[in-house]
Amino acid sequence: MSITADACAEQYGFFYRENGGVASARGFRACGIHAGFRENPGRLDMALVVADETCPCAGVFTKNKFCAAPVQVCREHLGATDEGTIGDSYGTARAVIINSGIANAATGALGKEAAETVAAMTAEVVGCEEAEVLVASTGVIGVELPLGPFEEGLPDALNELSRDGGSDAARAIMTTDTHPKECAVTFSGDGCGWDGCIFTVGGMSKGAGMIMPNMATMIAVLTTDAPIAPADLHKALVKAVGKSFNKVTVDSDTSTNDTCILFASGAAAQGEGEVEVVQSEGEMQGESTAGAEACQKTFQPDSPAMEMFQQALEQVCVTLARAMASDGEGASRLVTVNVQGAATPEDADLAARAVANSPLVKTAIAGHDANWGRIAAALGKSGAEFRQEDVAIVLMGLPVMLNGLPLEFDEDEASALFEHHEIAIDIDLGAGECATTVWTCDLTHEYVSINGDYRS
Amino acid sequence: MSITADACAEQYGFFYRENGGVASARGFRACGIHAGFRENPGRLDMALVVADETCPCAGVFTKNKFCAAPVQVCREHLGATDEGTIGDSYGTARAVIINSGIANAATGALGKEAAETVAAMTAEVVGCEEAEVLVASTGVIGVELPLGPFEEGLPDALNELSRDGGSDAARAIMTTDTHPKECAVTFSGDGCGWDGCIFTVGGMSKGAGMIMPNMATMIAVLTTDAPIAPADLHKALVKAVGKSFNKVTVDSDTSTNDTCILFASGAAAQGEGEVEVVQSEGEMQGESTAGAEACQKTFQPDSPAMEMFQQALEQVCVTLARAMASDGEGASRLVTVNVQGAATPEDADLAARAVANSPLVKTAIAGHDANWGRIAAALGKSGAEFRQEDVAIVLMGLPVMLNGLPLEFDEDEASALFEHHEIAIDIDLGAGECATTVWTCDLTHEYVSINGDYRS
Repeated sequence: MSITADACAEQYGFFYRENGGVASARGFRACGIHAGFRENPGRLDMALVVADETCPCAGVFTKNKFCAAPVQVCREHLGATDEGTIGDSYGTARAVIINSGIANAATGALGKEAAETVAAMTAEVVGCEEAEVLVASTGVIGVELPLGPFEEGLPDALNELSRDGGSDAARAIMTTDTHPKECAVTFSGDGCGWDGCIFTVGGMSKGAGMIMPNMATMIAVLTTDAPIAPADLHKALVKAVGKSFNKVTVDSDTSTNDTCILFASGAAAQGEGEVEVVQSEGEMQGESTAGAEACQKTFQPDSPAMEMFQQALEQVCVTLARAMASDGEGASRLVTVNVQGAATPEDADLAARAVANSPLVKTAIAGHDANWGRIAAALGKSGAEFRQEDVAIVLMGLPVMLNGLPLEFDEDEASALFEHHEIAIDIDLGAGECATTVWTCDLTHEYVSINGDYRS
Repeated sequence: MSITADACAEQYGFFYRENGGVASARGFRACGIHAGFRENPGRLDMALVVADETCPCAGVFTKNKFCAAPVQVCREHLGATDEGTIGDSYGTARAVIINSGIANAATGALGKEAAETVAAMTAEVVGCEEAEVLVASTGVIGVELPLGPFEEGLPDALNELSRDGGSDAARAIMTTDTHPKECAVTFSGDGCGWDGCIFTVGGMSKGAGMIMPNMATMIAVLTTDAPIAPADLHKALVKAVGKSFNKVTVDSDTSTNDTCILFASGAAAQGEGEVEVVQSEGEMQGESTAGAEACQKTFQPDSPAMEMFQQALEQVCVTLARAMASDGEGASRLVTVNVQGAATPEDADLAARAVANSPLVKTAIAGHDANWGRIAAALGKSGAEFRQEDVAIVLMGLPVMLNGLPLEFDEDEASALFEHHEIAIDIDLGAGECATTVWTCDLTHEYVSINGDYRS
C-alpha cells in the first residue's frame, strides 16, 4: 500500500489533512516542550498527549526480552494480566507522557519504579488515575531516568496542551530522526450508518534505526475520534501494525522500547467541534453534525464504518512507516520490496524480509548497482518455497530476471534509475497467490559512521 | 573450539603440520594454475585435487534455492537420488576441479550442461569415470562458464599435480580473500587399534563474504588418509561443518555455490609413504608402518579411532572457518561470540547468531565501542528463551552486564581492549546448560565500499 493522497480519496473516500498529526482527531490535545532530558535548551524532549476524557486505548509493544520499564508499565496500565510475558495489551487510558534522551531500559526494579512515578506525577497534573496514564521513553539505555525534568516540565506541558500541539509533540520524541513524522486522514461516515459524521485518524512516530550511543526505539502514538470499543480497537491496531510498522526493517533489530499506542475518543460521533478537511476532490467539508441516533454507539466489527476506519488507520500507519524507513540511519534511499506469487503469506514475508535485510542488497543500492544476483541469493536462502526457474525480478520497472535467468539490460540505464529517492524491487516467486510489501533503506558509509563512532 | 596447536597436542594428541593443506594426507595430489578465467596471467584461477584411487567422498552443499549448476552436478555424481531437493550427498569420487572468476550460477540448463562437460573433460585427463569427478565454481553469477580455459588448462594441471601442490590450489580458489586458507593436522593410531599408523586430515577453503560484482561462495575441500566408509564420512563431515563453517556468519547470507567436500583415501592404513609431523611435543615422528591386521579395515562408528578422527577433522574445519571469518570482506577484527547457559542448543545458536549478525553490534566493534546495550538488544530479539535479570555479558574479559543490569567500567580501558585482532564476546543466558560459539567480523566502511561500488 503506497498510494497517493488523490488515489486514496478516489479509492477509499478519505483525505489527508493538511498539517495533520496526533492532535487532529477531536477529543485530543498535545504538546512538546524542553524539559531538560537533553542539554540543548532549544531541543524539545518531552511530549504529552491527553484525551479530554478517559477513552478506549490499545497498545502493541516490543517482543524483545530486554523490554524496557515503560513498556512493562504500559502493559500493566492497559490491564495486561499475563505478567512475565510480553506483547499486546488494551483497555482505557487518558494520557501518554513521552521523554526522549533516556530510554529507561536495562534499569531493573528501580527503572520500573521510576516509570510508575512518572505515571503518577502525570496523573496528578492531568487529573486522572495513575493507571490511566501510559509512559514511553527513548534514548540511551542503562541510565537511570531522572524525575526532575518531569517535575519541572509537567506543569508547563499542561499549559501548552492544544489542538495545534501535534507538531511539537512529534518533534519532542525525535532521536536520530532527521525530521518529525506525523499525518492524519479524514473520512465521512455517510452511508455507513454515521451520516453527517466526519472521522479523523492521526498520529506521530519516531525511529526505526537504533541510535548512538546505545539503542533507539520505535514509538508511535495514534488517535482517532471514531467510537470503537477497546477489544475492537486492539484488533484493528494489530492488523494495521502488521501491514506497516512491522514491515519496516532498517537493521533487522527490534528495540527494547518499541511502543505503538492508539486512543479512540469517539468525539466525532458525539457531534463536537469543527473539522477541516483537505479539499482534494471538493467533496468533503463542513462540520460534523452527528444525529442523536449515532450517539452512544460504537463501530461494530465487520461493519462498513469499521472497514472504513481500518483503511484509514492503515493509511496513516503506512505513511508513518514509510517515513521511518526513508529516514533510517544514514539512509539515502527508501527501498520498497514487493513480493508476489508466494505460496503462503509467511513465505511472502520471509522472501521480502530476506531481501530487505540483506546487507549485500542494501550496499548494492547505495552503490547504484542493479545487482539482481544478490536479490536472487537472498530469496534463495529466505526459506520461502519456490523453484528458481519460476522467479522474476523487476528493478525500478526494469526486468532483470525472468524464469530464474538474468536478462540483458543496459547498465548505464539501470544505474540512472537509482537516482530516484524511492527504489522499488518487484519480485514474483511464481509459487502461489500471496503477496506483501516491506520497506527498508540502503546501507551507506553514513550508517557505519553513525553506529561505529566512539560513544561520547 | 579455538585452542592452540600445543593445547591440541596435549588435549587430543594431534599436531598441526607445517605448511599443511589439501594434499598433506597420503593418497592425494593437488595443483593450482592460471587457466584463463581471469585476465591477470599471474593469478591462479583453477585448482585440481586428485586421489590416487577412487575413494569414499562426502559433500555438504548450500541449501540456497538458487543453488548453482556445479552444486547440482556434485550432488548427482555423489549419488544423490532425491532430485529437486537440496543438501548433502555422499558416495565415492576421484577428483575435484574448481575454477574461480565465474560461478556458473543462475545459468539454467546450459550451465548444468557446461558443468557436466567440465566433469567429463577432467575425467578424461585424470583417467576415471565422469561420475567420479566433482566440480565447483566461484565468482560472478549469471555468466556462461567458458570451456576453453578447461580445455587448455587441464593437461597443464595434470602435469602440475603433486604432494606439494596444496598451497597453489588454495591460492587458485581465492576470490576477495586476502590470503589463502589451508591447514592439516596429524594423529597417531597407537592404542586405537591402528598401532604404527599416522593419520592426516587437511584441507583448504575460501570465502565467507559475498563478492563483487555479484556473489561469492564458500568452498572447502578436505582430505584424509584415514580409512572411512562413505556414510560414516558423511556423518563426521556434517557434525564438523555444524561446529565450524556453519558457525561463521559474515553478512548472514548463504551463497548459491557453498560447497564442502571431504575425501578419504585410507592410504595411511595401508602403510604407504612417509609422513613428517611437527615435533611439537617430541612425541610423534617417523613412518607409518601399519600392520597387516590394519589393512582392509575402516574406522568403525563410535570407535576410539573414529573419535580421534572426528576431533582432528573438527580442528581443521574450525581453523579454516576462523580464518574465513577473520578475512571477511572489509573485516578489521575476528569476533568470537560464545554463548553459554542456554536452555537448548537451538537457543544457544539463535542467541549467538543474533549477536553475530547484528549490524549494530558489528559497527560498534569497528568503532571500538563496548556497547553492551546492542548485544542485550540482539539477545532480546533472538527468540532464545531467558529472563533479562539472569543475563551476564563479558567483553574481552571485562564484565559489562550482570543480572541484566549494566556494570560500571572504564570506557578508556574498554576501548583499549578493541586493539586486539580477535574480539571475544562471552554471554551467559542463565537459562540452562547449552553452549555454542559463532564467528563473525566487524562491519566497516571498507565493507560498504567493497559491496557498494558500481559493478565494473
